[in-house]
Amino acid sequence: MSTLNLTLLTDLYELTMMQGYYKSNCKEVVVFDAFYRNNPCNGGYAICAGLEQIIDYIKNLHFSEDDIEYLRSLQIFEEDFLDHLRDFHFTGDIYAIPEGSIIFPREPLLKVIAPIMEAQLIETAVLNILNHQSLIATKAARVCYAANGDGVMEFGLRRAQGPDSGVYGARAAVIGGCKGTSNVLTGKLFDVPVLGTHAHSWIMSFPDEYTAFKTYASLYPSACILLVDTYDTLKSGILNAIRVFTEMRNAGIPLTYYGIRMDSGDLAYLSKIARKMLDDAGFSDAVISASNDLDEYLIENLKSQGAKINSWGVGTNLITAKDNPAFGGVYKLAAIKSEDGTFLPKIKLSENTEKVTNPGNKTVYRIYDKATGKIRADYICLATETFDTGKDLVLFDPNEPWKKTRLTGGSYTMREMLVPVFKNGTCIYPSYTVMELQEICTKEKNTIWDENKRFVNPSKIYVDLSDKLYQMKQDLLREMSVV
Amino acid sequence: MSTLNLTLLTDLYELTMMQGYYKSNCKEVVVFDAFYRNNPCNGGYAICAGLEQIIDYIKNLHFSEDDIEYLRSLQIFEEDFLDHLRDFHFTGDIYAIPEGSIIFPREPLLKVIAPIMEAQLIETAVLNILNHQSLIATKAARVCYAANGDGVMEFGLRRAQGPDSGVYGARAAVIGGCKGTSNVLTGKLFDVPVLGTHAHSWIMSFPDEYTAFKTYASLYPSACILLVDTYDTLKSGILNAIRVFTEMRNAGIPLTYYGIRMDSGDLAYLSKIARKMLDDAGFSDAVISASNDLDEYLIENLKSQGAKINSWGVGTNLITAKDNPAFGGVYKLAAIKSEDGTFLPKIKLSENTEKVTNPGNKTVYRIYDKATGKIRADYICLATETFDTGKDLVLFDPNEPWKKTRLTGGSYTMREMLVPVFKNGTCIYPSYTVMELQEICTKEKNTIWDENKRFVNPSKIYVDLSDKLYQMKQDLLREMSVV
Repeated sequence: MSTLNLTLLTDLYELTMMQGYYKSNCKEVVVFDAFYRNNPCNGGYAICAGLEQIIDYIKNLHFSEDDIEYLRSLQIFEEDFLDHLRDFHFTGDIYAIPEGSIIFPREPLLKVIAPIMEAQLIETAVLNILNHQSLIATKAARVCYAANGDGVMEFGLRRAQGPDSGVYGARAAVIGGCKGTSNVLTGKLFDVPVLGTHAHSWIMSFPDEYTAFKTYASLYPSACILLVDTYDTLKSGILNAIRVFTEMRNAGIPLTYYGIRMDSGDLAYLSKIARKMLDDAGFSDAVISASNDLDEYLIENLKSQGAKINSWGVGTNLITAKDNPAFGGVYKLAAIKSEDGTFLPKIKLSENTEKVTNPGNKTVYRIYDKATGKIRADYICLATETFDTGKDLVLFDPNEPWKKTRLTGGSYTMREMLVPVFKNGTCIYPSYTVMELQEICTKEKNTIWDENKRFVNPSKIYVDLSDKLYQMKQDLLREMSVV
Repeated sequence: MSTLNLTLLTDLYELTMMQGYYKSNCKEVVVFDAFYRNNPCNGGYAICAGLEQIIDYIKNLHFSEDDIEYLRSLQIFEEDFLDHLRDFHFTGDIYAIPEGSIIFPREPLLKVIAPIMEAQLIETAVLNILNHQSLIATKAARVCYAANGDGVMEFGLRRAQGPDSGVYGARAAVIGGCKGTSNVLTGKLFDVPVLGTHAHSWIMSFPDEYTAFKTYASLYPSACILLVDTYDTLKSGILNAIRVFTEMRNAGIPLTYYGIRMDSGDLAYLSKIARKMLDDAGFSDAVISASNDLDEYLIENLKSQGAKINSWGVGTNLITAKDNPAFGGVYKLAAIKSEDGTFLPKIKLSENTEKVTNPGNKTVYRIYDKATGKIRADYICLATETFDTGKDLVLFDPNEPWKKTRLTGGSYTMREMLVPVFKNGTCIYPSYTVMELQEICTKEKNTIWDENKRFVNPSKIYVDLSDKLYQMKQDLLREMSVV
């Protein structure tokens, strides 16, 4: 919200652990994976977003004198450690799945290989940014899927969880497929389309609805969407809108982008009547735009009922991902680099099998079916493994390893999803505009089937482990089991 | 997140309407009310928060050359209007219910009296800030109520909807009653306690759990909470913790604040066993701290099952208000000042009676029962009305006006809840520290009964209208009805 250095945007325990590592002279290089466990809203996929802001955060990571002064005031940090923080910056490597990509549960979305103090400090901010933007990009993709080609506009700023939530949420929503946002600051910061017309207060500040419409139309004739539900949609609003459109037509004013917006009432019923009234008056190209607590489920439902709406304004339910407002990404230690340069795998146990982490320095391949271009499966393996796509590949479900599938050599392609972002502390990743990311995301969404996008019980894309990784995990589980 | 001027943190339609008012030479002074319609989580009250940030926003409101350049690039604003924005600042009055107060649905929380262009522009940011912080403060009050005197720590930063959501969410959580936050930046910005110990990764980065505990205890002997569930809570974690505490005791290290934290498993079951194990080893003052998807319902439930937990770490469900992630505050035109200085009331109709707005330039009185100090009702009236608490006051439900209650003169007190914050564009409201706001909030929470705080079907406190306001509303409804 103000001039903030985000270095202290972290949990205190990251700093107490850092001091612990510092005091124990622990300078090990470690591997941390950021991943998530369940798709939002019980969906079949997610969209990752936020990498650009993570890059900015990592680039700017430093403790100001002010920060150090504050930490000193807590009386838990010693002078040598505080001194050490003065020159602190990120020196490690980061790999990530590109923004706008389709992603699946349990695969690393972002991998940090860095001295343990650095890798530990960045946990909280990395998760905060990745969780938030991936959540909203995913929700937006779902809403746009329901809208089935109609334009979806994000306009939830007033209900977002704070300014950033609105600004970066709108960014993520556009990546996920929204054609624009009402949020002017997002428009300015990220060069995305900003959209909007007027509120009920505009109508109420004039002596009557007709005068309010007339005045608006004279000011914005080329983008004239009139809000018709301030007093009574059918008996007043649409009639006044038609009157104004007719006057415009009679005056020879070109009606390029014009129509009505409804923000209350039964949108299926009202839109059908509105469509007929507009058509009968000769305004068959008038847009009917709707808002009011919309989400992907309601849009799908309204469409199935034949609602005559072709533009959707989505607020609260998108910007907060209301039915599933947390993405649940976690950041787990996966390996420690030994002196000989190899990675010693680490595992976190849990009573719940699916919560046991995948150990080791890993990467993720996406396997595409050559014939359709669609995703066949994702494949997590050790970073050192190599594959020959000319040969058969046997996939198996790591939770139910008897479930196997053989991919015939030559029938599939493999793409490494984790790409280098930072190398020895230097960013080597390009910056994309948000509209470029939206385009990337559109292509990504075409790599899965409608069956994976269905809202109810969607078909799952498997994320499998390589033989080597699976064996390593089993060996560690045996070693670690406490009896 | 970065050096941002928040003036453009607004919906585009606020600016298109502003230009509309400018072009129509509309300089009317208007009254807007911000209010909400339903208590979060079907509760009996809410807590308002965010006023300090709204004040900052209003004080800093200005269009930079950069902002104007951006608006020009949109090609919908004309040069005279853009020129006008150069000198734009807020010149109006703002009244608000103080931060940390108990609030109820449909009463104005914040009232703006300003030239229409100014009042319109600030709608989005005011709602964004008020909605977010009031939501989290309310959720925190609920969680703390369930914890029934135990300390509650906010630690949801990694799951918050972006950096601000974490930073200002933690601020609101402390106002609502949390004893501290894990969020270091919130600690620095608002001087609130920051708390935390270590993560599973700390344990996993050592050869074994005992060494990890031992190292931690030697670094932080005076605040030594050990995380016991990395491998196996009962068979490993608690045993190692007891071993380390015993060594500390034997070495004469004072055990001031120490104990364990559990982050998985059945917390009721595990905490009872843990309590017994710690007690048996002579550590009956060891803290048992718990986390893992906690919220007010689970905490209440664990307590009712006799869980031996006395410190609660609450993350995702608090910082996102997961079961109710939007507050739903709205901002509605209520009156327009006429040339003679009186206020012409305005009303927005709706098919839903409860959604019809309350017209006029209003204020809110809180009526306390003199004998108990508890709130009897809130009372919305015209700003010009005066009352004599020596006389009887008849209250009635505005939706069911036949439901009446008579308060005997002398048995009640009245307090005006809306207090002046800005006068002619100048802030006249003091700044409170977050810990002062927490204290205010604690007192406020004591003005309602347990029956109002119950999570299931809480008893409602009425928000009534004065006779004059009720009549004004009925008159307007009659005038406006479209037949």
